[in-house]
Amino acid sequence: MKLDGVSSRTIWLDSDGWSVGIIDQTVLPHTLVRLTLKTVEDAAHAIKSMQVRGAPLIGVTAAYGVALAMRADASDAGLDRAVRFLGEQRPTAVNLRWALEDLRATLAPLAVDARAAAAYDRAGKLAEDDVETCRQIGVNGLRLIADIAGKKGGRPVNVLTHCNAGWLACVDWGTATSPIYQAHDAGINVHVWVDETRPRNQGAALTAFELLQHGVPHSLIADNAGGHFMQRGDVDLVIVGTDRVTANGDVANKIGTYLKALAAKDTGVPFYVALPYSTIDWRTDRGADIPIEERSEDEVLRVQGKLANGDVGSVLIAADGTPARNPAFDMTPARLVTGFITERGICPASREGLKSLYPEKTSAAA
Amino acid sequence: MKLDGVSSRTIWLDSDGWSVGIIDQTVLPHTLVRLTLKTVEDAAHAIKSMQVRGAPLIGVTAAYGVALAMRADASDAGLDRAVRFLGEQRPTAVNLRWALEDLRATLAPLAVDARAAAAYDRAGKLAEDDVETCRQIGVNGLRLIADIAGKKGGRPVNVLTHCNAGWLACVDWGTATSPIYQAHDAGINVHVWVDETRPRNQGAALTAFELLQHGVPHSLIADNAGGHFMQRGDVDLVIVGTDRVTANGDVANKIGTYLKALAAKDTGVPFYVALPYSTIDWRTDRGADIPIEERSEDEVLRVQGKLANGDVGSVLIAADGTPARNPAFDMTPARLVTGFITERGICPASREGLKSLYPEKTSAAA
Repeated sequence: MKLDGVSSRTIWLDSDGWSVGIIDQTVLPHTLVRLTLKTVEDAAHAIKSMQVRGAPLIGVTAAYGVALAMRADASDAGLDRAVRFLGEQRPTAVNLRWALEDLRATLAPLAVDARAAAAYDRAGKLAEDDVETCRQIGVNGLRLIADIAGKKGGRPVNVLTHCNAGWLACVDWGTATSPIYQAHDAGINVHVWVDETRPRNQGAALTAFELLQHGVPHSLIADNAGGHFMQRGDVDLVIVGTDRVTANGDVANKIGTYLKALAAKDTGVPFYVALPYSTIDWRTDRGADIPIEERSEDEVLRVQGKLANGDVGSVLIAADGTPARNPAFDMTPARLVTGFITERGICPASREGLKSLYPEKTSAAA
Repeated sequence: MKLDGVSSRTIWLDSDGWSVGIIDQTVLPHTLVRLTLKTVEDAAHAIKSMQVRGAPLIGVTAAYGVALAMRADASDAGLDRAVRFLGEQRPTAVNLRWALEDLRATLAPLAVDARAAAAYDRAGKLAEDDVETCRQIGVNGLRLIADIAGKKGGRPVNVLTHCNAGWLACVDWGTATSPIYQAHDAGINVHVWVDETRPRNQGAALTAFELLQHGVPHSLIADNAGGHFMQRGDVDLVIVGTDRVTANGDVANKIGTYLKALAAKDTGVPFYVALPYSTIDWRTDRGADIPIEERSEDEVLRVQGKLANGDVGSVLIAADGTPARNPAFDMTPARLVTGFITERGICPASREGLKSLYPEKTSAAA
């Protein structure tokens, strides 16, 4: 999507043909810094420190991380070490392990000296696949927005989203934002309610930034406010992303998603989850089976932003010595989800719905 | 409650017998500054600048403001001027006008030279009444906590609260916090989940500070996290305050309360609202009839806290030019509220429940 007016991606191969470029998402939206990853440690740090975040982008970064590792040591032991090391950086991220297993399966049968080149090829392919997958999610979700627009006579279609399931979380287009960008680009009057998404404020820092850069009308709101706007009839549709969907249709996503799903149900607002096939965890039956990552209490106690002098810094919002807890995700039960928007189409949030779009997975989803 | 280890109130008469002490709440929790009000202008500034906040404390401060004004000019014109001037400082605060009209009615019939002393007496009486009302709310709410404690075998009773309905909003005890302080002081093992309460962070800045000072175990959480902890069985009880309860039992409270009430309903957690009689708006039938105040978008775009150098300052959390919306309250429908805790007891959140505690209001609540 557009960044400083230029079509951009979140990860790319540098002109040297092997080092990997990313955008440092920890200092957005105040500073646009591009970083270069040259080692598997660089890639691991980028994943752990959330310089890259979002399930698809984490997966592609991990794949490039394996490629960087193969440049240094392409032995079986080196491959095992890279896969294990990269996999430890974000324990809840299913795409991370999926991409790493894909790379392992691709590289393990190959001769050691063929592995680095093959890893770069495979990482590049995963990136291209993600762009196409996200584009298709947008094409499918666009129909929902177009249907609502048809009933609103030119008044804006109000879409609420939580966290950042935008192009900054993917390679391009995003998942939850892809239908929005497609609608905007098609000339539909769309306005986005952007949850700030404490504690890390990905909505304020990333989603609002994306929409501002691409020219899509939007309003930043406190995470507390979405239910109120739904009660007042000011939300037509909720679209969020997800970190993992279990076989029964339960949705793990950024902490707070559950609360918005409850409000949507209570007020009759359709609540959709946009996801690529790779986010479906066929082997986990229900959301209750997923462990929830707890992150540092410092993320709750401090808020990052731009200081009066223009630097990026943080403020402490509670008294010294205040304890905090910081679960990163919550589970939204399938019963609260109107449907899934995937690259293959739209389906109900249920075991049967998922099987209808992915019949080849039926046997695996026992 | 305890402040620096000493039992304290939010407003008091100084040792000179006429000047009025307050805590400057605008720099909490990072700095504890006590201020002395010596003129009606000082009192007006304290109200306007939110050095004092919370409906009951604003009312008592205004009453003392009239007393300070009477020292300078106790004529009829002086009384009118003081009431009008103080009333202009926070135009939507119901308790402010209620306290000022109470003072006017008390003082107007008196001889001019008797008014100052009578004003101090009346302001002191309003303060004592508030303390006793809050204490009784606590005594009544304590039973709920004690009942749960009896079933938990010494494990902590986990209470979630939103915003600050604490003693800093009142004179002592608070409303939602009063049962918690009573339980803690009675030796019950109680732990409080404190919603940070964006956009103004009253939970992080005030409620967590209060609990830390009084020694009550607590954890600060993002507003997004409460639903997750309820799903996991980590919340036994929700208690919040309210800005206004309508005759049918709908609850206007800080934005985000509705979302926690939905989560409590969905997970079977009891959801109580603590309030003094003065918060019941018998003349408004339903929550839908209440206009919702929208405040400055700057509150959403900026977060205040302690900077690295120890000063209190703010950070901008979104890109320059990001639009925001900031509704200050939402409506929680009575159907989501388990009950009301008032100074008279506990009742269902319904027209009939309110009438059972306040039968003398029956005719007014047509």
